[in-house]
Amino acid sequence: MAELQIHPVILCGGSGTRLWPRSRATKPKPFLPLVGERTLFEATLDRCRRDELFAQPIVVAGSAHLAHIAEQASADAAIIVEPAAKNTAPAIALAAAMLPESALMLVCPSDHHIADTGAFARAAEAAARLAADDWLVAFGIAADRPETGYGYILRGEPVAGGHTVARFVEKPDRATAERFLDEGGYSWNGGIFAFRAGAYLAELARHRPEMADAVARAVAGGRYEGREFHPAAKPFTEIAGESVDYAVMENTARAAVVPASMGWSDIGNWEALRDARSGDEVGNRTTGPAEIVDCRNVLVETDGPRVSVIGLEDVIVVVDKGEVLVTSAAGAQKVGKLTGAANQ
Amino acid sequence: MAELQIHPVILCGGSGTRLWPRSRATKPKPFLPLVGERTLFEATLDRCRRDELFAQPIVVAGSAHLAHIAEQASADAAIIVEPAAKNTAPAIALAAAMLPESALMLVCPSDHHIADTGAFARAAEAAARLAADDWLVAFGIAADRPETGYGYILRGEPVAGGHTVARFVEKPDRATAERFLDEGGYSWNGGIFAFRAGAYLAELARHRPEMADAVARAVAGGRYEGREFHPAAKPFTEIAGESVDYAVMENTARAAVVPASMGWSDIGNWEALRDARSGDEVGNRTTGPAEIVDCRNVLVETDGPRVSVIGLEDVIVVVDKGEVLVTSAAGAQKVGKLTGAANQ
Repeated sequence: MAELQIHPVILCGGSGTRLWPRSRATKPKPFLPLVGERTLFEATLDRCRRDELFAQPIVVAGSAHLAHIAEQASADAAIIVEPAAKNTAPAIALAAAMLPESALMLVCPSDHHIADTGAFARAAEAAARLAADDWLVAFGIAADRPETGYGYILRGEPVAGGHTVARFVEKPDRATAERFLDEGGYSWNGGIFAFRAGAYLAELARHRPEMADAVARAVAGGRYEGREFHPAAKPFTEIAGESVDYAVMENTARAAVVPASMGWSDIGNWEALRDARSGDEVGNRTTGPAEIVDCRNVLVETDGPRVSVIGLEDVIVVVDKGEVLVTSAAGAQKVGKLTGAANQ
Repeated sequence: MAELQIHPVILCGGSGTRLWPRSRATKPKPFLPLVGERTLFEATLDRCRRDELFAQPIVVAGSAHLAHIAEQASADAAIIVEPAAKNTAPAIALAAAMLPESALMLVCPSDHHIADTGAFARAAEAAARLAADDWLVAFGIAADRPETGYGYILRGEPVAGGHTVARFVEKPDRATAERFLDEGGYSWNGGIFAFRAGAYLAELARHRPEMADAVARAVAGGRYEGREFHPAAKPFTEIAGESVDYAVMENTARAAVVPASMGWSDIGNWEALRDARSGDEVGNRTTGPAEIVDCRNVLVETDGPRVSVIGLEDVIVVVDKGEVLVTSAAGAQKVGKLTGAANQ
């Protein structure tokens, strides 16, 4: 195959409420070592470490996170500072506008966990090859359970290394998710995309011309500060924020999907984090001083105080900076609405 | 009826492991405000407050607890300091030996909760009248569930205000406890007793002559320090410790039982404590800063850190001095065996 170079574009967003109290507004999820020793952001950069396949990484982030990024990003990373949080479509457009039109971008959220980095690299390469043919390519994560927390992608006709996208489906209810699993042909939308920079901007201009124009003006009026690029604030701030899924992927006629079976998790809540960690023989996982008696599939995470748990199953206990969270695994999706999480 | 005077004898023992981490060796269960504003010890004294029925209270305790007793006991209480912890039979004998032979004693653990103090006083009076006739009288707590954590008393023939004891039964297994409840005729042994002092000492001398002799020598060689009486250490320390149930009640031919339906609990573990407290409309009880979402019959007790709980039923969360306990209600009986509780 022809030689390929992929430009990783790492998106840093998120408010840090769903993994409260560990994740806080001041230090949200990407910058915490939630699975293993490396933070999710560091692990994302590690997966795209500059080599024959991957070029210099580009990090797109808000100014609130620059201190964490300075501490955790490799020295060669380029940084684009979003003047305002406007969701993923404008953030990706900033990076696309900074790259040559022919550059192949791989857009990666900074707060996901991927267990199998080899499978990730293979999927990235397959996606980049499709993107080189001007497909707008989503990673289709192998769906192995009727998850209601993710969007789904229905695969269409085969194309080299993947499929066209027949349909994007929003987060389904439980019955619909079970039907998808039974029927087959559906993948989860993992929020990882490959685009040729020029193709992305062209499709954005077709479907969201005002957004494309505002991004072009923000980049034209921007300035560098060291390795940070600061787009002009005014045009960018006036953008109506929108996700890449809504603004581009659901509208383009050139959407494709590559299969990715790589132990992926968006670590979207404490239950997902528990599942991403390896446990003992009965599924208990502990970080920090803990004693666990007669429990199964219990997660304990404490920043100091000893936690003793007796007789529970599928329960999560988190102690962090004077806050104590105790939730059923199923209840983990409500953590973001707790007073402590919402009023940070 | 003839006038009656009852000498309350309050026993302070217990190691503080079953309600860990709230209860600690340095400040065990009797001296904590576990139900309501008063400590269990204060509430025990309140129930026997000196009046026409009750005489000066006598507190029997180890030296480790004297500071708590000095702080919490009414000024008129007499205090007998056990030279060593030897279980209840010798402790009661110390008090009996300090009283006139004709005195009617009411022996009360200091760490029980009794919701209906009027019913308690009526049962105390009935028990004292039987004790005046030289019966050795146990309170028989109305058994309303197949509890496996208490000893049982099978009622025999009626006597004035109560029954003879047909049989004492040790803590039964679940099936046996259910049979007791079905058959009727059984009460729980609440560890509350009425004796004429001379009758108790006579029965002790009959069934445990060495213990009775050692107690007599300890009292004869004792000394006062203010309101504290310190029995001689040597004879007392050599006693083989034993409960009043084993040493006296199960051996005497004069055991009687009076019915007591008074909202009693021995607060023997966190589940019992939860049940002794009043909850909201779905049974949740919180002390300290807490947010409870989608829960039923959850107890939260925290000395400072906020506790947020989601989606749990019959779970107990206790935060105290840097320790966090999370247990199922059923698991509460294992708290005393946790590392934190056992290695205080």
